Amino acid sequence: MPVAFLFPRRPRRTNVPRLKPRRESVAQVDRVDLAELTPELLPYLGQAAYVQLALFETLGHAVSVAPTAASKVAVSRVAALSLAKHHGLAAEIKRLGHEPGPTMAPFAARIDDYARITLGADWYEMLVTAYLTSGLLGDFQRQLASGLPADARARIIPLLSSDDGHALLIDELRSAIDANPRLASRLAVWGRRLVGDTLLIARSSLANVGHSRRDEARLEPVFTELIAAHTRRMDALGLTA
Amino acid sequence: MPVAFLFPRRPRRTNVPRLKPRRESVAQVDRVDLAELTPELLPYLGQAAYVQLALFETLGHAVSVAPTAASKVAVSRVAALSLAKHHGLAAEIKRLGHEPGPTMAPFAARIDDYARITLGADWYEMLVTAYLTSGLLGDFQRQLASGLPADARARIIPLLSSDDGHALLIDELRSAIDANPRLASRLAVWGRRLVGDTLLIARSSLANVGHSRRDEARLEPVFTELIAAHTRRMDALGLTA
Repeated sequence: MPVAFLFPRRPRRTNVPRLKPRRESVAQVDRVDLAELTPELLPYLGQAAYVQLALFETLGHAVSVAPTAASKVAVSRVAALSLAKHHGLAAEIKRLGHEPGPTMAPFAARIDDYARITLGADWYEMLVTAYLTSGLLGDFQRQLASGLPADARARIIPLLSSDDGHALLIDELRSAIDANPRLASRLAVWGRRLVGDTLLIARSSLANVGHSRRDEARLEPVFTELIAAHTRRMDALGLTA
Repeated sequence: MPVAFLFPRRPRRTNVPRLKPRRESVAQVDRVDLAELTPELLPYLGQAAYVQLALFETLGHAVSVAPTAASKVAVSRVAALSLAKHHGLAAEIKRLGHEPGPTMAPFAARIDDYARITLGADWYEMLVTAYLTSGLLGDFQRQLASGLPADARARIIPLLSSDDGHALLIDELRSAIDANPRLASRLAVWGRRLVGDTLLIARSSLANVGHSRRDEARLEPVFTELIAAHTRRMDALGLTA
């Protein structure tokens, strides 16, 4: 896959004034495309459950290096939300008569590598990672879920849409950036660096992708929308995507 | 405080045949002694809440280094239980009109040091730490809670007595020790090393201690019972305390 695909050369195309009409038309295309590309339910759940576990680990590291006890409390709440999603997905795996461990195992090495690379060097980067990667992967997993069987979809989409603690992360990050404006440029760079690896992990969730130029063309609007949503999350921190 | 107090020279005195009658008499003494020595409710809650947060961090590290996805799942469940206790204690702090962060802050440095020293070098040691230290500090906090106001006590004792995930930790550790019997001696040493630091943290929860030899004498049966319970937890792993 060409890097240009993951990093559109003209992100300006997703700027705010054009977003609304674009999102609506993209959303319709997504549903069609991703439904076809959704893998079987069990591997979908295995990967999604392991992503939440990896996110929990990132948040656990962040709790460990939090600057104050109050920050520890805030981030531990976000970690609990992520763990609750993991346990909900693990329950779906059990509902299918499988064990979460072996079901997640095929995805572990790739996601562990991803989590290691994207962990961040300090508290601030860890929070940015937790916020941006859970946002992007959450958006993607919800879109992908549209291709799942109806009864599973009816349980999984609300689970993935439940509180992700972003408001707490944004509060922590905004007050840190306000207190130290030089953080903004470092975290903006970090936020941009996260996108490529995160889109690769998202892409690895898709069944039968990359077999043709047609698949690539069909996926482009999906990824463009994911990047637009990422840009809005960066905006919420006052950072330039 | 003499080290001999924390490490009774004759732990054999707490062996199983004598335990039952000894426990009963000790339990009566405890209630009297610790009720007098319980600190005010707010610092009690601050320390107990921070201990759970530190335990959560230890378990989070363990999740990160777990050997399999299935082990990650098991330990993440234990982490969630610890975090739930933390959030329950934090809710009690809020009920008193205080914020958890500043209420825990006076205890953070000491408990962070303790958690760093007792973290353990690998997955096995981390699980032993989580199991033994949560057991000992949980026992102690429950005893101490007997000196709290009745309404707080009625909420806090059930919270501290809720599932601590020990069965999951014992399962993980026993199967690891069965698969590699050489682990047993290393983990037995580690378990013994944990006791001293953990009793010091417990002791730091007490109000007005160490002012007299009489206090020391009154506390001795309490700590003897804590060590006896620790010995039973080591037994459950097949380790010699």
